[in-house]
Amino acid sequence: MRQAGRFLPEYRALRATTPDFISFCMTPGKAAEATLQPVRRFPFDAAIVFADILLIPRALGQEVWFEVGEGPRLGVLPESEVLEAAIEGVAQALAPVGETLSLVREELEVERALIGFAGAPWTVLTYMIEGRSSDRSRAKSMAYTDPDRIARYIDVLVEATARYLVMQVDAGAQALQIFESWAEGLSEPLFQRLVIQPHQKLIARVRALGVEAPIIGFPRGGGALVNRYADEVQVDGVALDTQVTLEQGRAIQAQRCIQGALDPLLLRAGGAELDRRVEELLEAWSAGPYVFNLGHGILPDTPMFHVKQVVERVTGKMAQL
Amino acid sequence: MRQAGRFLPEYRALRATTPDFISFCMTPGKAAEATLQPVRRFPFDAAIVFADILLIPRALGQEVWFEVGEGPRLGVLPESEVLEAAIEGVAQALAPVGETLSLVREELEVERALIGFAGAPWTVLTYMIEGRSSDRSRAKSMAYTDPDRIARYIDVLVEATARYLVMQVDAGAQALQIFESWAEGLSEPLFQRLVIQPHQKLIARVRALGVEAPIIGFPRGGGALVNRYADEVQVDGVALDTQVTLEQGRAIQAQRCIQGALDPLLLRAGGAELDRRVEELLEAWSAGPYVFNLGHGILPDTPMFHVKQVVERVTGKMAQL
Repeated sequence: MRQAGRFLPEYRALRATTPDFISFCMTPGKAAEATLQPVRRFPFDAAIVFADILLIPRALGQEVWFEVGEGPRLGVLPESEVLEAAIEGVAQALAPVGETLSLVREELEVERALIGFAGAPWTVLTYMIEGRSSDRSRAKSMAYTDPDRIARYIDVLVEATARYLVMQVDAGAQALQIFESWAEGLSEPLFQRLVIQPHQKLIARVRALGVEAPIIGFPRGGGALVNRYADEVQVDGVALDTQVTLEQGRAIQAQRCIQGALDPLLLRAGGAELDRRVEELLEAWSAGPYVFNLGHGILPDTPMFHVKQVVERVTGKMAQL
Repeated sequence: MRQAGRFLPEYRALRATTPDFISFCMTPGKAAEATLQPVRRFPFDAAIVFADILLIPRALGQEVWFEVGEGPRLGVLPESEVLEAAIEGVAQALAPVGETLSLVREELEVERALIGFAGAPWTVLTYMIEGRSSDRSRAKSMAYTDPDRIARYIDVLVEATARYLVMQVDAGAQALQIFESWAEGLSEPLFQRLVIQPHQKLIARVRALGVEAPIIGFPRGGGALVNRYADEVQVDGVALDTQVTLEQGRAIQAQRCIQGALDPLLLRAGGAELDRRVEELLEAWSAGPYVFNLGHGILPDTPMFHVKQVVERVTGKMAQL
């Protein structure tokens, strides 16, 4: 996750050497270094490859660039047939991400896991349709007015993403995470059609291509629908956002590993409330599998001391349990 | 709700006569006309007063204005003591909204209800802290770093809002709705502290001041926490956003009336999917009390024909049930 190291001064120094964000992601030596920086500082159990969810549309032929201080911009959306013709070349186009994974896997201690990832089809498609960060209303409207067209795009993204994820495992990823950053605000019928069904297809396809690594799904902002997601999608783990309830987590633990939930704003704020919340999460979910993590990306101005404080508290608590 | 009439040409013509939005809200003749326009066109069971949730901070002394095409802007946030001193004058400062209600009540048929409303304390406070529409991260951070300060502001807003709502009932409102537009993305502890507790206090205070009218709470974006809200807040009705599940609605119906849920994007899109969804909502919730409504404000470019189509379908269906 490209946000992983952005609270570190050494990350900011490294990023400054290649100002263009896409070029940075596609330079394996630098992306590998950015992946390793947080795990050098802290005894995290895993590292997540430094990359971006918009590398997929770029590999399929849609123009993608980043405006400094504003975020991503995408060119005109090609027809789905045009994108479909590019699927064959996706793994090759994204080979630098594979090289990053191989470099990291060589250097990372054997007891630490390396996680690969991709954006989920719907989330990636929202950027492809809107051309930038947005409230997704154009994309959602199109899901209502032109469901067949949306389905064609989703199918292309399912196949391209499956191949990308398989390539990541071949290159050294030991677990995969699927980021549905925009599960938020979808009605129940749209959530079924745009989140649950595409995730089911994507996972089936990745498994059919021979991948056995655990897969974590992250339906961020899914609200009460996160339980349905956990019921119906054959993921090994469900990453939880900051809004999830303790009760939801417990219900999901009955069938899946859970991960996440700590509010990055609270990690940045620190203090006694942070300590209390960390204890609360660990205790509430101690009866089942729980990977302690944030519910969303770390904020750039998070004091490193707070990260240290949480890591020590979690490690100490886990030793007690 | 100021969004109620914005799909109507007669609303746009009326609004053009007073370009300044706050002035428009504070001109009873025009605000009453805007309130009545949608109910003249369609056989809705109720009208909601035309006003804005940011009239409260303005009445408390914080500067509020609207930038055309951009949305609200607020001046420097006064200290809570300064705002507190202004509570006494709130009902007087907002008397034009009372006049609007009285004018509407005179003209509205007796069988149609008139709804008053206010923004919930947390939602209003996010605008007061951020100074504009935002991702609320400054306000949420402050809730973690300076909980006492946030609590003081919330308490001021609870009292000011209670008096504003009582004034609305005195002026002719027969039901009240509390809009928590930004319940979205709050962690469980923040939701308890910033949504549930202030709503409990606000409702207790409004009841203590003698109001018997039904009160509808709208914890928009509350996800799975909407059920907790319905359990713990003594509202008569719970308005549901577009993301709520049919199952959540049924669970809430066991103790409260529910309202809302239709996606405004689907109303704008129209077609067979709109018809299917309307049927689905009506059938799923036919065993308990359900006020058919949108899950969020109507979009300005919604075809009037779609509104007509839905009203006819709902009326026809209700006749069958």
